[in-house]
Amino acid sequence: MTRYQFLATILIQRIEQGLYQCGERLPSVRSLSQEHGVSISTVQQAYHLLEEKQLIVPLPRSGYFVKPRMAVAPIPAMTRPVQRPVEITTWDSVLEQICSRSDPDILQLGGSIPDLTPTTLKPLWKNISRIGQKQDISMLNYDSLHGLPRLREQIARLMIDSGCQLSEQDIVITNGCTQALSIAVRSVCNPGDIVAIESPVFHGIMQILCGFGIKVIEIPTDFSQGMSLEALELALEQWPVKAVLTVPNCNNPLGFIMPEHRKRALMTLAQRYDIAIIEDDVYGELAYDYPRPITLKSLDYEGRVLLCSSFSKMLAPGLRVGWIVPGRYLDRALHMKYTSTGSVAICPQQAVAEFIRQGHYMPHLRRMRALYQRNLGSFVNRVRHTFPEKVCISRPQGGFVLWIEFPETFDGVRLNQRLVSEKIRVYEGSLFSVAGKYRHCLRLSYAMPLTPEREEGIVRLGNVIAEMMNNPVITVG
Amino acid sequence: MTRYQFLATILIQRIEQGLYQCGERLPSVRSLSQEHGVSISTVQQAYHLLEEKQLIVPLPRSGYFVKPRMAVAPIPAMTRPVQRPVEITTWDSVLEQICSRSDPDILQLGGSIPDLTPTTLKPLWKNISRIGQKQDISMLNYDSLHGLPRLREQIARLMIDSGCQLSEQDIVITNGCTQALSIAVRSVCNPGDIVAIESPVFHGIMQILCGFGIKVIEIPTDFSQGMSLEALELALEQWPVKAVLTVPNCNNPLGFIMPEHRKRALMTLAQRYDIAIIEDDVYGELAYDYPRPITLKSLDYEGRVLLCSSFSKMLAPGLRVGWIVPGRYLDRALHMKYTSTGSVAICPQQAVAEFIRQGHYMPHLRRMRALYQRNLGSFVNRVRHTFPEKVCISRPQGGFVLWIEFPETFDGVRLNQRLVSEKIRVYEGSLFSVAGKYRHCLRLSYAMPLTPEREEGIVRLGNVIAEMMNNPVITVG
Repeated sequence: MTRYQFLATILIQRIEQGLYQCGERLPSVRSLSQEHGVSISTVQQAYHLLEEKQLIVPLPRSGYFVKPRMAVAPIPAMTRPVQRPVEITTWDSVLEQICSRSDPDILQLGGSIPDLTPTTLKPLWKNISRIGQKQDISMLNYDSLHGLPRLREQIARLMIDSGCQLSEQDIVITNGCTQALSIAVRSVCNPGDIVAIESPVFHGIMQILCGFGIKVIEIPTDFSQGMSLEALELALEQWPVKAVLTVPNCNNPLGFIMPEHRKRALMTLAQRYDIAIIEDDVYGELAYDYPRPITLKSLDYEGRVLLCSSFSKMLAPGLRVGWIVPGRYLDRALHMKYTSTGSVAICPQQAVAEFIRQGHYMPHLRRMRALYQRNLGSFVNRVRHTFPEKVCISRPQGGFVLWIEFPETFDGVRLNQRLVSEKIRVYEGSLFSVAGKYRHCLRLSYAMPLTPEREEGIVRLGNVIAEMMNNPVITVG
Repeated sequence: MTRYQFLATILIQRIEQGLYQCGERLPSVRSLSQEHGVSISTVQQAYHLLEEKQLIVPLPRSGYFVKPRMAVAPIPAMTRPVQRPVEITTWDSVLEQICSRSDPDILQLGGSIPDLTPTTLKPLWKNISRIGQKQDISMLNYDSLHGLPRLREQIARLMIDSGCQLSEQDIVITNGCTQALSIAVRSVCNPGDIVAIESPVFHGIMQILCGFGIKVIEIPTDFSQGMSLEALELALEQWPVKAVLTVPNCNNPLGFIMPEHRKRALMTLAQRYDIAIIEDDVYGELAYDYPRPITLKSLDYEGRVLLCSSFSKMLAPGLRVGWIVPGRYLDRALHMKYTSTGSVAICPQQAVAEFIRQGHYMPHLRRMRALYQRNLGSFVNRVRHTFPEKVCISRPQGGFVLWIEFPETFDGVRLNQRLVSEKIRVYEGSLFSVAGKYRHCLRLSYAMPLTPEREEGIVRLGNVIAEMMNNPVITVG
């Protein structure tokens, strides 16, 4: 056994014994070299070995961190939604959730807002400032209907990583991913049509479908494989489904990345039943492994995929800069954009286009991926120590949201009511289903680092949950 | 006759003889005082007299200008559209028109883009720059669904001038007036419903209705009284009309302001037939006379008016900051906003809110009103001298668009085809109707000052028109 292997063994033992906890920073190379009387390069080799074994993870300019031990909590079983087309009726709960967002006194543990504090975002501010200084009148004029050409150029470049060869003419800028999805739905459907979706699904997607009078059929979804293609095929045989709407990469709320062979199989299904695919890739760039996963769009030779994304999760949601690659539905998508907002504000588009052109985007993305992966470790660790034992936890492969499943008797809606006095808010699982499914689940967000305040909040949350589980309300039907 | 009355008489003669032409600047007070050997105050009194007689108009810091002689060309007769519900089919022509907008080589004489050069806009740039410098993270976060509170406060203050007593809770910020209108339509209608509109009507409005599958019934419209309420009542009796969509103040494209008694009558009709009113007030603040005309919203005690507006015409369209006051449809409007774009970009909202709070808005508005009124004079003058005699011209009471009606044999669509080689573009009248009406009309814009380049463009336009009218194409049906 060489020196570095010996050192690695010691470190592995310490991690396993919990001396270095999940998400914790490991000693610096220098201090470890002094502690063990070995050279800097020996420590570096030991750390590389641990990195290869996926036990630790490097964070640029911050050192090494213990990787989350994902095997500690079981993942939930495949979901089992009602499999017939239903109308969506959950707007009131969603509105309540959105409105609580702007109350600064409430500790939000569920919202999917990215961390906006990293210094790698600084150049974005500089770009905004520069727009004000340059006083270029075109920044105040109507934008072209496609969107700012220099931004579309940059997006086409970025999308090469997801396997897409696009020109700027294929891309239409939108007011965030919400408008991209809304345009996509309105480009391929008519009110009353049926769309198949994963279950659970991001509540915003459901509301977009609801707002246009679409019925949805929820498809059982696996926490590592994504939407069950077997169940989808059954649904396609049984109902006149117009499109599938899916979040295959870093799914919100489940965190999976659909494996590539399943993506290919989904494309084949779509072809066989001649349906459109609306692909939400808004978290796709935040996959923890590099290179990032491919999009369905990259497998699309017929233009039947409408890819929707935005900079809301990668950069900042307040910019409202998103895009759609509508494939064969381009004309219709332009019409739907024109009739819903006309053009998009130019100033944020320009700030983002310059940010990417100046080369700030990839370093920022690398930093955020590493940050979120580190947060995941410490967050899961904290949840495991605080929440009752009988929970299943999702294993996000990217992004920054976590899905937690409690025993069936648990009620997330009642939890949020109980949390009002605690000034804490989480996302109850029923927001992610058509008609009240997943009340026993929660979505939490680990975008923000575990500050003492958040840590203390999770402890209080855990206490309320424990109390509720010890005194379940038996509903007599 | 006093000295100043005598001087006024001389000036009136000179204007009538055409020595001082429409839109031309009159001599400065100082030079006139020297020319006639009278005191400064005598000249000022004479100018005030002319102003009272509506012969001249003052422009702050620029002096006095000859007011357009509106009586020179006849106004068109009331329009006579097809009065049954029809589907809208003009998207291709609209798209072509929008796409030509971004070609810098084409002289645009029809588009409704405001003049963005006035120095009174400078503080807006400064505000954008300040946002970049302050680095307040809330500017990058999701906005509340209603929109930025400090902007809504300012809008509530501004709307007092239009007769509305509103709180910020009544207002929802939108991505321009387009989204406001789109939300309004989707809040009160379902696809397949019928909406009554003025005829002609701004093509964007028609496309919004079209994009949501609404059928429209066009109502005859008078160039000074607005929509014929008699014809509207007939339509309401005959068809299940869900709402009236109207642009009662500084109508686009006709320029009228609906008289107050007609506004009241329209409200009574809406009440009697229990329909909603969607009011587009996007040009309302640009009425030439002060105080500005009241909105229908100010007469609405039941919440049936959905007022839509934006800063696109008053400040700058590229900001995409608009708003809706949806009355009793507030909940539904919030839902429609959430499902079409989520929130609106914060940075432009903040820049505008500060611009108003700092007191820059009203001076800018006064300047723009005076500028557009002056442009109107010189523009109409130029058109009258250049175009064939047999035209009728609208008499805008605000805003910056002009409607010109040629003899029936004239074809505006063919004109635009002929203008391709001239690198000029106008808006053919048929864009403003459901199915090809008004081909013999044009909409022109006088937002920009008559530079030599634009003046020369109008001459070339006039030549092509004259040539076409001398060689009409007889279509054999």
